[in-house]
Amino acid sequence: MEPLLPCVASLRLVDHHCHGVLRADVDRDGFESMLTEAPSVSPLGTSLFDSSLGLAVRRWCAPLLDLPVLAPADEYLARRLSLGAAEVNRTFLVASEISMFLVDGGLSPERLAGPSVFTHSSELPVLRLERLAEELVTEGAAGFPDRVRSALALSSAVATKSIAAYRVGLALDPERPSDASVVAAADRWLASGSSRCADEVITRFLVWEALERGFPVQFHVGYGDSDLSLRDCDPLLLTDLLRATAGLGVPVMLLHNYPFHRNAGYLAQVFPHVFVDVGLATHAVAHQASRVLAEALEIVPFGKFLFSTDAYGLAELYYLGALFFRRALSDFLSHGLRAHAFALADVERVANLIGWRNAHRAYRLT
Amino acid sequence: MEPLLPCVASLRLVDHHCHGVLRADVDRDGFESMLTEAPSVSPLGTSLFDSSLGLAVRRWCAPLLDLPVLAPADEYLARRLSLGAAEVNRTFLVASEISMFLVDGGLSPERLAGPSVFTHSSELPVLRLERLAEELVTEGAAGFPDRVRSALALSSAVATKSIAAYRVGLALDPERPSDASVVAAADRWLASGSSRCADEVITRFLVWEALERGFPVQFHVGYGDSDLSLRDCDPLLLTDLLRATAGLGVPVMLLHNYPFHRNAGYLAQVFPHVFVDVGLATHAVAHQASRVLAEALEIVPFGKFLFSTDAYGLAELYYLGALFFRRALSDFLSHGLRAHAFALADVERVANLIGWRNAHRAYRLT
Amino acid sequence: MEPLLPCVASLRLVDHHCHGVLRADVDRDGFESMLTEAPSVSPLGTSLFDSSLGLAVRRWCAPLLDLPVLAPADEYLARRLSLGAAEVNRTFLVASEISMFLVDGGLSPERLAGPSVFTHSSELPVLRLERLAEELVTEGAAGFPDRVRSALALSSAVATKSIAAYRVGLALDPERPSDASVVAAADRWLASGSSRCADEVITRFLVWEALERGFPVQFHVGYGDSDLSLRDCDPLLLTDLLRATAGLGVPVMLLHNYPFHRNAGYLAQVFPHVFVDVGLATHAVAHQASRVLAEALEIVPFGKFLFSTDAYGLAELYYLGALFFRRALSDFLSHGLRAHAFALADVERVANLIGWRNAHRAYRLT
Repeated sequence: MEPLLPCVASLRLVDHHCHGVLRADVDRDGFESMLTEAPSVSPLGTSLFDSSLGLAVRRWCAPLLDLPVLAPADEYLARRLSLGAAEVNRTFLVASEISMFLVDGGLSPERLAGPSVFTHSSELPVLRLERLAEELVTEGAAGFPDRVRSALALSSAVATKSIAAYRVGLALDPERPSDASVVAAADRWLASGSSRCADEVITRFLVWEALERGFPVQFHVGYGDSDLSLRDCDPLLLTDLLRATAGLGVPVMLLHNYPFHRNAGYLAQVFPHVFVDVGLATHAVAHQASRVLAEALEIVPFGKFLFSTDAYGLAELYYLGALFFRRALSDFLSHGLRAHAFALADVERVANLIGWRNAHRAYRLT
Repeated sequence: MEPLLPCVASLRLVDHHCHGVLRADVDRDGFESMLTEAPSVSPLGTSLFDSSLGLAVRRWCAPLLDLPVLAPADEYLARRLSLGAAEVNRTFLVASEISMFLVDGGLSPERLAGPSVFTHSSELPVLRLERLAEELVTEGAAGFPDRVRSALALSSAVATKSIAAYRVGLALDPERPSDASVVAAADRWLASGSSRCADEVITRFLVWEALERGFPVQFHVGYGDSDLSLRDCDPLLLTDLLRATAGLGVPVMLLHNYPFHRNAGYLAQVFPHVFVDVGLATHAVAHQASRVLAEALEIVPFGKFLFSTDAYGLAELYYLGALFFRRALSDFLSHGLRAHAFALADVERVANLIGWRNAHRAYRLT
Repeated sequence: MEPLLPCVASLRLVDHHCHGVLRADVDRDGFESMLTEAPSVSPLGTSLFDSSLGLAVRRWCAPLLDLPVLAPADEYLARRLSLGAAEVNRTFLVASEISMFLVDGGLSPERLAGPSVFTHSSELPVLRLERLAEELVTEGAAGFPDRVRSALALSSAVATKSIAAYRVGLALDPERPSDASVVAAADRWLASGSSRCADEVITRFLVWEALERGFPVQFHVGYGDSDLSLRDCDPLLLTDLLRATAGLGVPVMLLHNYPFHRNAGYLAQVFPHVFVDVGLATHAVAHQASRVLAEALEIVPFGKFLFSTDAYGLAELYYLGALFFRRALSDFLSHGLRAHAFALADVERVANLIGWRNAHRAYRLT
């Protein structure tokens, strides 16, 4: 393996989309179930340690817990328990060398802590739109649109996030819904007795309101848990909405995107406000991240690509997300150097764009 | 070219999905037409020997017939004829070093012989569900569901196979159909005068019945003859049915999958009973198999991936399917070793899982 | 970087699909906006020179204008202006070493000149079907079908081109429309007041008429400007029409195809009259073209693949399209040589097929 390019090794990464880290210890079953998007380990398969990600934990994380490279899974988990969650979290979050985290804290907040609890890195909140709607709708359908607007006006979030992919799919109608249609949708929702925001009109309303108030909107796209339908998560389904919102001049971030990352790259090229990443996939494919990142970077302008881990729960995932991203980015740039496609100054500029400059510009970070 | 890893070279492969081999000799047109999924060689193109697979025949198969490497196509076919089908079949099947074949004998059984006729390898039957239905429906719609259940109860097949992709597409409704709806569908079928099973209700019934009786169901997915519509063969179309049948705990095998192999890998990760392979594509892409296999293995747990050739008709296809699979698997594992992602013990375990252990576990082979 | 294989370096390429080259000079904004399929440079991103294609211009084109490798963008554009459009056009078109251009002149003809204005290469016209219809419909709906037939009968074009992807999507009905239905569609079109041909019936009519008169039909497929919807540009949407027209024995050329190039390869394998290329993507992905071309060549018979640049406006795009195509083809063939998949004679034959022989056969060039 080649050493990392120095300009990549020293990147002060901004992780523009992640979740929190588990406060409590976790046993082997719990740990393995967080190495997969399945709800649990299948009795028909074998251990999730027999996967690209599982092997990466044993290979790259074990030494940080003072275990030998590729220590057996049971030894790894015993060591992890003996150190305790706080120490494990600190170890991997520090080792990730991520300088700033944008955190979607809307999933299982009671079990998770923000990464900055364990590091000196800064942390900024991302507001989960569906969760906001779920809180505000309980006060009744009448006035729901205004309550959303007020909440956004008061929010200190640096961005918003939509999980439309999980709830209604990404084939969102492009039209901005009227307040009357939103109230009617909220009425139907309340009548349904469900606490989950899973209505296309309301989702679309949330996205438009967020963009009009200048909040970048992050969309989960592609690969995810078994409760989504991957066919409904192709970023191309967002085309009409992207065309309709381009004029607002506010960034839309397509997260993850695997295995539709080439489609996402196309959208980032042709729509002025679209940015993309390959978070989640980066640690999931582990030592194969170089190919996936290279594909994702084929036609996307380098000013439109970001880094994220999408890490959730296990501190190892921040570390591995950053590790394999650096590896893949270094491989991409080294390959360009070897093919005489870039000079070193280009490589350094592109690394900075993708590692942190694009995030600073898109989210107006200081 | 690197030598194969010893643990891959010595794998006792289980080919969990193939067809039979031609009993009779074949001329050049017949041979070329079996190097493509097209019904025949196009007068607008050139010889099918100008394709990855065609060149692979000349490169890798010619020496086994005592011809020089890359012998001209006509010499190859003349030599093949002079040896006779039986000798050619024996040569390539033995050289494939496949220890066990699971054979879908439902396509052109009159022209084909099982591979074990020519080797000492074992062979187990796979029951083609549409063919079973076509036989049983001729006795009338009334009682058709019970006749299917009786036939399955008596079947000694190790698994079942559905060609829904060719007949109704993979967008199967998830619901288990009632007997009454199946009888009505059989009535419509008989009234249509067609002998082909091409009804969504009946297909779905067959799949549910097979799974409930504990038979793994193999689905043709992706790439195939021109009489399918590839858009209807994306494995993601099966999502709802997979979600509905996960609780049965019986394997569903997604075959081939190209060019949707990443989508298939996602399904194998998130659904407990889903297994995948890249049969057919392995020999079709030939010396490029390493990239396709690596993509297919990105997010799939290694306990959920299988080997198959999907060989049909030409004995060369078993040999080339096994040859390029070994090459691709060795390249994948060697790349992991070079990237310090795996240790040798991991490589050996993963090779055994993919080469035969997963098949033994999923099909309960002894 | 390896040197090009001599048989690839010396290929007399036929560019079977390109547009014309700008007659006038262009400033930095105008130049950058032609490095992307977006309508303009996004203020949220950075310069389009920070993309694979932008870097390729500085790397490979600068030296041809007597600038240093990777000269800064502003120096490049200043030098370009000082030389003037004619000299720049001549330089890059000659350096592309393309021997023959098939030119779709239907887009902005007033601003563009044919490539042969600046080289000694030959040039043949491709008739844009939608433009023909737009001219002929102004004479009224009655008689429109016959006017189309007469125009085709008199046309000296070597092929026709459809931009159905941009106007109605590729999900064309397979049936040949009746003259009465075409007249009715033309009536609706004229009543709409639009000058654009964007009617599915008329598109389909144009395609059938062209094929029946023996004109190969080129389809824009996949990647393109933001005014298309990429979901409607998957070549698999053409499946039914391809099945219906296979019997005519006239070539259908699927252009570009990215990121659906594997789907296109499948169609070229199973349908006798389908040919494919990866034009446009070749220069867009630039130094990454080797991977894209290799994927595109996985299952396509080598007698069914063509070269094109799809260059439009900037003379650099002809040069870079040819440069990266030669690089990618050489890499593909060299990899096959290294993997012992081909012999040198095979490599030379395949290079000639793809570089020019297939185009000569499909378009009956002399």
